[in-house]
Amino acid sequence: MRGFEAVEIGHVVSDLRDMAAAPRQPDDGAPAARLLFKPDFAQALTDVRPGDRMLLLTWLDRADRSRLRARRGWDLAGPEMGIFSTRSPDRPNPIGVHHVTVSGVEGCTVMVEALEAIDGTPILDLKPELRGAG
Amino acid sequence: MRGFEAVEIGHVVSDLRDMAAAPRQPDDGAPAARLLFKPDFAQALTDVRPGDRMLLLTWLDRADRSRLRARRGWDLAGPEMGIFSTRSPDRPNPIGVHHVTVSGVEGCTVMVEALEAIDGTPILDLKPELRGAG
Repeated sequence: MRGFEAVEIGHVVSDLRDMAAAPRQPDDGAPAARLLFKPDFAQALTDVRPGDRMLLLTWLDRADRSRLRARRGWDLAGPEMGIFSTRSPDRPNPIGVHHVTVSGVEGCTVMVEALEAIDGTPILDLKPELRGAG
Repeated sequence: MRGFEAVEIGHVVSDLRDMAAAPRQPDDGAPAARLLFKPDFAQALTDVRPGDRMLLLTWLDRADRSRLRARRGWDLAGPEMGIFSTRSPDRPNPIGVHHVTVSGVEGCTVMVEALEAIDGTPILDLKPELRGAG
């Protein structure tokens, strides 16, 4: 199977320490967090502004990548479903897609209002939302 | 820099053959396309249904990963901006996030109504949208 190397361009700093403490979905209600980017990417961050609504992509490095079926997070009594119909972190490519609202930027640190991602989670990308909530 | 291996779990089949022909953003107005998943992932697809609104994650394998600044796609006369404030495919981790609406499923092929991704683009993930347009 063909592979591609995703690189860690930063990481999440959060009070969330483990998955059990993490609210499942959505990110609303999760605690504020900071995104620490590596200095190599400073030039990519210069136009990020407070109030920006963005998509944060993370690599969920504790995931079980062999799982193809899971229950939906909010429905422990529900049936197992194909993993592509769930937001389970356990999936072949464990990429988290998070809606974030920027509350501040200082150097290579971006503060966000609410984020459901545990401390230390590697960051892959940050990009503007599409369609308002896209 | 720490790396993670993303694997190609399928690919896009589309009449879009090159970036010049591809509408930039959003996916509305792009042609219908098919997502061909590898048979290994059949069990992950069983609950995908026509009408489902989903996020498709792709690896934009023709991207220039060294670029940190670019103009916004729709504004060729505009200033260069930090890449994280654009949806440019040229970025450190060239992961495309596409909104798709499923129009049919046959075995390991998922038909979608409109997709701005060129033929052959590798697929990394498929997951439900959050918040309606999430």
